[in-house]
Amino acid sequence: MTNTLTDYISGYMDTINQQLEQFVYSLQVPERLRDSMLYSIQAGGKRIRPILLLMACEAYGGSPNRALPVGCAVEMVHTYSLIHDDLPAMDNDDVRRGMPTNHKKFDDATAILAGDGLLTASFFAITNHDLLQDEEKVYLSRELSKASGAEGMVAGQMLDMEAENQELTVEKLEQIHKHKTGELLRFSAVAGAYIGGANQSQLQSIEKYARHLGLLFQVQDDILDIIGDEEEMGKPVGSDETNQKSTYPQLLGLQGAIDKRDYYANQAKEALKEAGVDSTLLEEFIDYIQHRKK
Amino acid sequence: MTNTLTDYISGYMDTINQQLEQFVYSLQVPERLRDSMLYSIQAGGKRIRPILLLMACEAYGGSPNRALPVGCAVEMVHTYSLIHDDLPAMDNDDVRRGMPTNHKKFDDATAILAGDGLLTASFFAITNHDLLQDEEKVYLSRELSKASGAEGMVAGQMLDMEAENQELTVEKLEQIHKHKTGELLRFSAVAGAYIGGANQSQLQSIEKYARHLGLLFQVQDDILDIIGDEEEMGKPVGSDETNQKSTYPQLLGLQGAIDKRDYYANQAKEALKEAGVDSTLLEEFIDYIQHRKK
Repeated sequence: MTNTLTDYISGYMDTINQQLEQFVYSLQVPERLRDSMLYSIQAGGKRIRPILLLMACEAYGGSPNRALPVGCAVEMVHTYSLIHDDLPAMDNDDVRRGMPTNHKKFDDATAILAGDGLLTASFFAITNHDLLQDEEKVYLSRELSKASGAEGMVAGQMLDMEAENQELTVEKLEQIHKHKTGELLRFSAVAGAYIGGANQSQLQSIEKYARHLGLLFQVQDDILDIIGDEEEMGKPVGSDETNQKSTYPQLLGLQGAIDKRDYYANQAKEALKEAGVDSTLLEEFIDYIQHRKK
Repeated sequence: MTNTLTDYISGYMDTINQQLEQFVYSLQVPERLRDSMLYSIQAGGKRIRPILLLMACEAYGGSPNRALPVGCAVEMVHTYSLIHDDLPAMDNDDVRRGMPTNHKKFDDATAILAGDGLLTASFFAITNHDLLQDEEKVYLSRELSKASGAEGMVAGQMLDMEAENQELTVEKLEQIHKHKTGELLRFSAVAGAYIGGANQSQLQSIEKYARHLGLLFQVQDDILDIIGDEEEMGKPVGSDETNQKSTYPQLLGLQGAIDKRDYYANQAKEALKEAGVDSTLLEEFIDYIQHRKK
């Protein structure tokens, strides 16, 4: 990761975290429910969705102030999805980012409600935004509901569960990831570019960029599960094999997965060339995802 | 229930059910997820939220076509809340409306995702609506997120769970119901009046009407749990006592609860007088809720 992108990310990280916390604090919510929502919001993470959204907005000359609450919205959707996915009924994970998962810290019922609350709040964050026009709020709410709902991210989690203990094809695996991880990343990039003022053709290029970025993200996730550093990642390596999940390395071998990752990175770079934009940061972001260690 | 309201409800029931089904069918969703969403949507119910929304819209001269998709949105939110509330981690109910609950018919994970999908789809139903202006979509999406989220319905479920096995005051019980049941009914009435063209003062009267209607609904629910007919209701009576839930009859005695119910009904009628509207149906609706048998 070059200095430029490092600076950009660290420059915005505190702002994103503060806005997220302030937003949850500002809600009139029963104490335990608020604690549970805040716990997962404060558990950190790379915040790559809001970062991507902000970068895409600024790439088209947009003001980050207009993009920030939408970045918080997508991060709340992402956080809710982790809370629900970790539940015993779903992936049954006890640890995330080196800390107890939400339902281990609180209880299953509270975790379900905290997830429901964060998901619902994301639409409030967009529609209550001071600096967006009504037309923009409608577009962003509609796109977020498509990307995160039963046609998008929720479909991905369903397909992922159905695929457990099954031998998949690479095509089927891609279909899962396009929904489960890809849709929110796609939304983030497109939403940022839209707020920044990108035209239809530019939005299509950014969408293509983000689709490849999403697949790239997932292959690297699978690779890290084999060669990653447990301490750096805050979770055990080898869990995919333990959980009998299909992964790129399992289907293609480790080198095959690395080749696939590099192919997606190149495809993302190609798409970016068509996006008609000062793309330095967005291009560095590809390298960042491609070579991340956690 | 008089003929007028009976006719109104039966006249719209098929339309509401068809629109709900068509909406879920129109989504590109993994088969099992769609089956699970449809199962709970098709399980029926009184559809009082969309009915109330349509009546309030028409009372102010609005076209029901403009209100119907918003009515479907609120019914999807209501349906998702039932699916999540029934989960073993929450109320652990096996039967609803005489049928297996969603997680008994499918499984816990699918039920969680079906709920998530329906909640998210409700915002799509509003923002993708052909007949509403952007300003209206923003207002309705924002109000729905407030009413259904961590400050509204979700807060109510949290408070309800925390209150289990505790002796409550009537004030605390009201606080729970105002959130858990009240907020979606409030949204339905206000949203309908808003779409119909009500002014600010009229919206406030309709909101007051709906708040009392919500409490009325809940007291009658508690009363039916004691004196209701199991077969008509499709669920066992006496479950509140078995579950050690605080209810109006428990706190006030059966006659005290009946008095409270009638008080709320009168308050709702008073509010309606200030609403400046042809209120025949909305007034009959009070009687319908007050004297319902299921």
